[in-house]
Amino acid sequence: MNPIGPVNALYPMPTTLVGATVNRTVAHVGILNHGTPQYLSIGLAKAHYSNAGLHENRTFSICLPSEDLMVETDYCGTMTGKKTDKAALFDVFHGELKTAPMIRQCPVNMELKLHDVLDFQTHEVFIGELVQTYADDGVMTDGTIDIAKMRPLLFDMASVRYWRLGPALGKCWSAGKSLKRS
Amino acid sequence: MNPIGPVNALYPMPTTLVGATVNRTVAHVGILNHGTPQYLSIGLAKAHYSNAGLHENRTFSICLPSEDLMVETDYCGTMTGKKTDKAALFDVFHGELKTAPMIRQCPVNMELKLHDVLDFQTHEVFIGELVQTYADDGVMTDGTIDIAKMRPLLFDMASVRYWRLGPALGKCWSAGKSLKRS
Repeated sequence: MNPIGPVNALYPMPTTLVGATVNRTVAHVGILNHGTPQYLSIGLAKAHYSNAGLHENRTFSICLPSEDLMVETDYCGTMTGKKTDKAALFDVFHGELKTAPMIRQCPVNMELKLHDVLDFQTHEVFIGELVQTYADDGVMTDGTIDIAKMRPLLFDMASVRYWRLGPALGKCWSAGKSLKRS
Repeated sequence: MNPIGPVNALYPMPTTLVGATVNRTVAHVGILNHGTPQYLSIGLAKAHYSNAGLHENRTFSICLPSEDLMVETDYCGTMTGKKTDKAALFDVFHGELKTAPMIRQCPVNMELKLHDVLDFQTHEVFIGELVQTYADDGVMTDGTIDIAKMRPLLFDMASVRYWRLGPALGKCWSAGKSLKRS
C-alpha cells in the first residue's frame, strides 16, 4: 500500500466505504470539480452515527472495495455503527491526517480533510479536499490505477443491485474525431 | 419518452451530456443526498461557455447517453459551444421547465432547477433539484429504469476511456446477511 499522490479514483459511480469514527457504506458520492485541489462530496443522512465523528475530526476517508468485498461492504451498509464494530471486519490503517480510518482490504483508499458542510433537510453533504490516495500495487499499471485490475463494486439504486464493470469501449477525446469536419 | 416522476438515475458514475444553453459532455457529477427533493451536482470549469446560460435560465438537464452514443458524446466533450452547434447532432426537446434542453437520443434525461452554486477556484458547482425524469420505454422494466437495458456509457479518468457496465453481482441489503450473527 503506497502513497501515489492525491489521485481522484472515483470513476465510475462506485460503492464506497466512508471512514470517520467508524466505517460505513455510502453510495451517494460525487466529484465536484476536476483540478487541484480536488474536491469530493459524500451525502450522509443526519440520523447517522458517523456524522458526529466527522464534525469532530474534520477528516474522512473514501475507501473503494473491489467485487471481492461485496459481502462485507453490504453488511456495513445494513448495520449501524452504534451497535456494531464494523471496523473489526477489516484491518484499519491511518495515513498522514492520522484520524481518517482506511481499510487495508480495499485496493484504493482516499484520505480527505473537511472543506465545508452543506445542510440539506435530511442530509448533510460533507465536502472534502483530497489529500492523499493509497493504492495496492496489485491494481496499478505503469504508475496509474488500473480500473480493470481494481474491479470496483458498482451500485445501482433502481435495481438495488451491485454490478461489475464491463470492458473498455473507446478512448476519450478521440472516439469522437470521426465527426469533426476536416 | 414518458415522464415517470423525479427518479434519480445517476448510477453508476456515468458520462453525461449537460444541457443549459448548449449541450456538453460532463463526467464530474454527483449525488448529494438520497431523498426528496433529490439534489444532484455538476462541476463546470469557469471558462466554459454554458455556465452563463445556466446562471441566466436557472435550469439544466443531465442527459444519460447509452453506449451507442459514444462517438457523439465524445465529440461534444472536445468541442466548445462557442464555435460548434452541438445541438445539431441531436434532436432536442424541452420538458416542464421549458428552458432545459434534453436529448431524444439519450434513453434517460433528467430535468433540474438550479438550487445553489458553489464557487471553487477554477470551477463552479451547480446544485440542481431534480424536477422530472424522462425515460425511453425501451429501457424500462416494470416501471423502473433497467440499467442493463440502458447500457450507460461509463467514464474513467485514469485510463481516459469509456467503459461498459458488466453483469449484476448481487442484491443490496441482502448480500451481507451471511455475516450477521443469528
